[in-house]
Amino acid sequence: MAEAEKFSVVGHRVTRVEGYEKVTGEARYVGDLQLPGMLIGRILRSPYPHARILNIDTSKAEKLRGVKAVVTAEDTVKRPWGAFFADQYPLSVGKVRYVGEEVAAVAALDPDVAEEALNLIEVEYEELPAVFDAEEAMQEGAPLVHEGKARNIAMTIDVERGSVERAFAESDVIVEDTFESIPQWHCAIETIGSVADYAPNGKYTIHMNTQTLFSARMRVAAALGVRETDVRIIQAAVGGGFGGKSCDDNNPIVAAILARKARKPVKVINSREEEFLAGSRPRVNMKTWIRMGFKKDGQIRAKHLRIIADNGAYSGKAPAITGVAALRHDTCYKYSDVKTQAYLVYTNKIPTGAFRGFGNPSAEWAVEQAIDEAAHELGIDPLEIARVNAVEPGYVSPHGNRVTSCELKQCIDMAEKMMDWKQKRAAKKPKTGLGLACTVHVSGKRHFGDYDGSSATIKINEDGKALILSGEGEVGQGAATALCQIAAEELGIPMEDVEFSQADTDLTTFCLGAFGSRLTYVAGNAVKDAAAKAKQQILEMASEMLEASPDDLMVEGGKVYVKGAEAKAVTVADVARARLFRRSGAPIVASGSFDADSVLPDETRYGNESGAYNFACQAAEVEVDTETGQVKVLKYVAASDCGTVINPIGAEGQVEGSVAQGLGYALIEGLRMEEGRPINPNFSDYRLPSMRDMPALAHAFAKSYEPTGPFGAKGLGELGMDPTAAVISNAIFDAVGVRVRTLPITPEKVLKALTEKGKS
Amino acid sequence: MAEAEKFSVVGHRVTRVEGYEKVTGEARYVGDLQLPGMLIGRILRSPYPHARILNIDTSKAEKLRGVKAVVTAEDTVKRPWGAFFADQYPLSVGKVRYVGEEVAAVAALDPDVAEEALNLIEVEYEELPAVFDAEEAMQEGAPLVHEGKARNIAMTIDVERGSVERAFAESDVIVEDTFESIPQWHCAIETIGSVADYAPNGKYTIHMNTQTLFSARMRVAAALGVRETDVRIIQAAVGGGFGGKSCDDNNPIVAAILARKARKPVKVINSREEEFLAGSRPRVNMKTWIRMGFKKDGQIRAKHLRIIADNGAYSGKAPAITGVAALRHDTCYKYSDVKTQAYLVYTNKIPTGAFRGFGNPSAEWAVEQAIDEAAHELGIDPLEIARVNAVEPGYVSPHGNRVTSCELKQCIDMAEKMMDWKQKRAAKKPKTGLGLACTVHVSGKRHFGDYDGSSATIKINEDGKALILSGEGEVGQGAATALCQIAAEELGIPMEDVEFSQADTDLTTFCLGAFGSRLTYVAGNAVKDAAAKAKQQILEMASEMLEASPDDLMVEGGKVYVKGAEAKAVTVADVARARLFRRSGAPIVASGSFDADSVLPDETRYGNESGAYNFACQAAEVEVDTETGQVKVLKYVAASDCGTVINPIGAEGQVEGSVAQGLGYALIEGLRMEEGRPINPNFSDYRLPSMRDMPALAHAFAKSYEPTGPFGAKGLGELGMDPTAAVISNAIFDAVGVRVRTLPITPEKVLKALTEKGKS
Repeated sequence: MAEAEKFSVVGHRVTRVEGYEKVTGEARYVGDLQLPGMLIGRILRSPYPHARILNIDTSKAEKLRGVKAVVTAEDTVKRPWGAFFADQYPLSVGKVRYVGEEVAAVAALDPDVAEEALNLIEVEYEELPAVFDAEEAMQEGAPLVHEGKARNIAMTIDVERGSVERAFAESDVIVEDTFESIPQWHCAIETIGSVADYAPNGKYTIHMNTQTLFSARMRVAAALGVRETDVRIIQAAVGGGFGGKSCDDNNPIVAAILARKARKPVKVINSREEEFLAGSRPRVNMKTWIRMGFKKDGQIRAKHLRIIADNGAYSGKAPAITGVAALRHDTCYKYSDVKTQAYLVYTNKIPTGAFRGFGNPSAEWAVEQAIDEAAHELGIDPLEIARVNAVEPGYVSPHGNRVTSCELKQCIDMAEKMMDWKQKRAAKKPKTGLGLACTVHVSGKRHFGDYDGSSATIKINEDGKALILSGEGEVGQGAATALCQIAAEELGIPMEDVEFSQADTDLTTFCLGAFGSRLTYVAGNAVKDAAAKAKQQILEMASEMLEASPDDLMVEGGKVYVKGAEAKAVTVADVARARLFRRSGAPIVASGSFDADSVLPDETRYGNESGAYNFACQAAEVEVDTETGQVKVLKYVAASDCGTVINPIGAEGQVEGSVAQGLGYALIEGLRMEEGRPINPNFSDYRLPSMRDMPALAHAFAKSYEPTGPFGAKGLGELGMDPTAAVISNAIFDAVGVRVRTLPITPEKVLKALTEKGKS
Repeated sequence: MAEAEKFSVVGHRVTRVEGYEKVTGEARYVGDLQLPGMLIGRILRSPYPHARILNIDTSKAEKLRGVKAVVTAEDTVKRPWGAFFADQYPLSVGKVRYVGEEVAAVAALDPDVAEEALNLIEVEYEELPAVFDAEEAMQEGAPLVHEGKARNIAMTIDVERGSVERAFAESDVIVEDTFESIPQWHCAIETIGSVADYAPNGKYTIHMNTQTLFSARMRVAAALGVRETDVRIIQAAVGGGFGGKSCDDNNPIVAAILARKARKPVKVINSREEEFLAGSRPRVNMKTWIRMGFKKDGQIRAKHLRIIADNGAYSGKAPAITGVAALRHDTCYKYSDVKTQAYLVYTNKIPTGAFRGFGNPSAEWAVEQAIDEAAHELGIDPLEIARVNAVEPGYVSPHGNRVTSCELKQCIDMAEKMMDWKQKRAAKKPKTGLGLACTVHVSGKRHFGDYDGSSATIKINEDGKALILSGEGEVGQGAATALCQIAAEELGIPMEDVEFSQADTDLTTFCLGAFGSRLTYVAGNAVKDAAAKAKQQILEMASEMLEASPDDLMVEGGKVYVKGAEAKAVTVADVARARLFRRSGAPIVASGSFDADSVLPDETRYGNESGAYNFACQAAEVEVDTETGQVKVLKYVAASDCGTVINPIGAEGQVEGSVAQGLGYALIEGLRMEEGRPINPNFSDYRLPSMRDMPALAHAFAKSYEPTGPFGAKGLGELGMDPTAAVISNAIFDAVGVRVRTLPITPEKVLKALTEKGKS
């Protein structure tokens, strides 16, 4: 990439700043932590999908030797909490609403005693009628998951821009279809866990593997009924987040309640089964009815969506996720007349939540297939229909999203080239097909408190090394590395002279954390701001030392030079020491902040949700075994526009990981439930894509520069998995002419579709 | 105090911010810490005062089951380090120079294995002639402790201001005497300890109970041969410092070397014996010859001091301590012509170091007795001779110390009153006497890098609570509480809304730490600066919210008001949230700094060592049992000028603790050594003053305001023990006419002096 040439650190392939300790096994995950006198906590969970709690008798458990605390709702303030709607409790109050809900908990000297104590807690339940299907739950007379929530509807979206009626009337071709997605689990190798500690002055310190520390602080404080500052969240090393470690679950809160009662630190780590039941909250399952109108040339004229989103028992982030599914795609292609109705519906099932893509994969599963259907109906190459509709810089979506940089067309070109699209289409082989889909994603999302910002402090030590104090955290995605690169670039010091702090709500300023593909863009801008301010302090001091105006100085490779007289130099370490050790000495330290120039959507959901939008086009070549229904992905290509690529190694990893999760979503994954009871909550029965499931993968990054991004960068982390399921389904259709409309696309479903097609 | 009336928080009696966790036993001292896989480290120490190391064979120790690392100098960079002179090694290189020196160390799974491994290390020594007396060490031909240090002299001071020859000629009375002090130990209840951790990226993290984190970082990095940033020091709760935890010893460095070799965290905690031998370094022992000339009215005309200071085997802070002993008193009384010669001399004994008073108690032991002698000779009330000579605001000492605020005369008045001095003198009873001494101390000391500053960052959380991020640390002296009060006062928020961070070199900016009675004054000013900047951010935001100019606003009790319209208010929490959660949102965070307006002494030792000077006058009434030599302190009074008293409870505790340590110094303490081998390094044989040794104690604080201090405050922590030994000796002389010239003043020595007096 030509742009990278300008940069000393940004755009270079650098190894992960926290990589060494991870690959040597010396990183400290929450499971590794030991605190003095630490106890082990375990949680008693509801065996019923819906039941009234008549009585809980903890007396036998309390008497067990080695048990230090037993807690129920009686040990809590019984104040509901939640990311958007306050509808859940740390420990069940009166009722349980899904199998796996936290009813009581114990802290004991060891796990065996804790486990035994759980067996001694006697809970008397009165089973209640339950509802497991979102459409059934919306019927009058269905059992109510939450009292007062008529027809179990947690949230409704009903938005029309322009006139879909007129637009459909003006369409040459109309397609209509219904698609259903699945709840998909993050399956991070490390489950959610916390070590909570309670100090006698009333302060809780919780070591967590969360990806959103300050939101965790806010939610834990709310659930415990204390002030934010009374909760300190310290991030341990995180073994994978993907949205699942956003603190929508009760794990840290239960640990905190136990710690307060036991007056000892308590470690609560989810087992894999618990992780499926009530840990990382799976992708919201959506049933999407879609109707789209097109002009003859493939131009999209109208779109009408109706989404029924299965929220599960508690809402978490599902309201925002449903909003994304309902509206986001309208920033991918040029839309004018659109209508979206979406219903988020409570059921007696595992609560759902944030997962890479955040509603986008479920929506694109429907929309990008409908467009593919139209392309086939219109006889247009699916790649061309994408090209016709792809947005360009300056586009404003019907909902107000303003696109600054956009290289979607370049991505389509790159995907075409990497796939040999035209040649392959021209020489189509039987049972082999090509599919394609495009996507848009955000670089941060403005919602919470009309804020989508970040802040960071940078200090320069006397040895010239910089430390970034940031509460954004590193969750394994490489954010720390990218942020160090941005700081190094701005400061003019070598990459190895920058460190990234452990995230800690006490010691860093407010940060929203890792979600919405925001860190490189939003936190990157905050870090760049702090670095620029620190650099100013360096230049002012160096100006005295070198007897030159700060404007005549440059910093590069850790040295400050007089421009044009580069022999005249001092090191940044010299400057840092000189600034500190002198009369009126002071350390080099600066706080920076950034808030995206986005606009909080109004009550009609009109706004501009993000400061920058990132785009991708992906294509697949598949071969379908018509005897077995087996789908083999022969080749996969991904072209991404994420602005300037800060760390190519990291960016490639993000794309590869996204595609892998997308392929799992498309072909393999899914928790099966019977009457609200999961039947495969383990890695033997819930299969994940492995190395051998990965196709030959080619990827490329568009030459792109986001003017509002740090050194031109924008988000990437989620982009790569948004379109994947649709890409695969479109390719299958191209190969064998059948379309499986429910995820995952199993061989059984393909075979059934082929059989039905054969019949018709 | 009238001044306190103006303040909401400052001057109020507040409980310690870290008190609750300490009294409930839940504070985490370094001994409490557990890290995953942590090993126990033990150190093999030299049994000889001076010997060459011919060979070390660690092979047997290494083979012992459970031993994970054995280290010697071969595992180090063999680079000497030290606070002022680089003369010591983490592990002996070639030679040992005192009994207790670190020769090798092991890390093992448990303490017993570690101990057994020490026994298996075979060290072959060649004993060398040793020297134990400083005067003998200065003789030509004495064994050299360090090669190249002629006559074992580590440092010489030779300063004359004015002309002492002329001044003695102009004196009416001349006194001349010689006094000897003792090495005194801090005897903090918690010994020095470290838990060191080494990350594979090369970073050392050391949890320590140090009182000077950044100096520790600097020294540990130097000793390990790495950059400062490669060492992170985190302060654990500290169970008493008193100067002994200033990181002049090898404990953390040995722990770090073990951790690197074992690739596991290693805990090294000094036993009590190790603490005496090589842990907290005792007060420098000084032999002081003094000659002073006075005018008839008691005015001091001339002073000539000659100090021989016994440095022990390695220098640590003894050079600076000797400097204080040599020159500091000249800021207490009005001096014009003074001459000081001081020699810091290496011996084959335990290295000495910083202890509350830092050279001042040893000097005053001599000077304040010489003045007392002159008063008796001149027939002047010792209280009057102090009054005649006491300095006043505006005084500049012969060495350049500039006195801003000074209420020494007020202190003398208060001591007189509290003691009923005149009445008691008038009605003197046999064997009962009164003694008195005055002192001056600093509020921070400019030496290291021409810097005596501090820095702090304050952030305000969304709940309106403030967190002070400071690397100064809390060592049990109450600094955190005073700094919280200063921040609360400046911010206008309640005391309970301010927290003080754990000190951590990675997460806080550069701070020199706790020494030189500097924290309230120097760190207080830095915290106040940060608070003022944070308050400015509060006012700017509140100005928008309240539609009033920032100048028209005031903050009090956590609320921002429009002056004169106090119903119009928002809380600081409202402001913090409003500033963050909005377009262009940012947290409230500000970094502050301060550097004292002092002047680094030049090569002639002329300068102005501190930004402010604090003063005290203490007096005692004693009764001497002439049969046993037993001295009973009937009453003790202490009047102190520390500027504004920030927290009266804390200030009183400082004075009481100082006097207790001063009485121990005067009457009880002292390690006995034979041929460099301590014979009482334990609490059975090294007796400390206990409750029953404490006399009735009255104290008072002068009405005083230091214009450069935070809210008028200056230092206090050491002041109270500077004069105590001289006070007691002067009182004994007044009671029974004998003077014991070597510390401690044991009954045996008193009896011997009485017997000799009887003979003559």
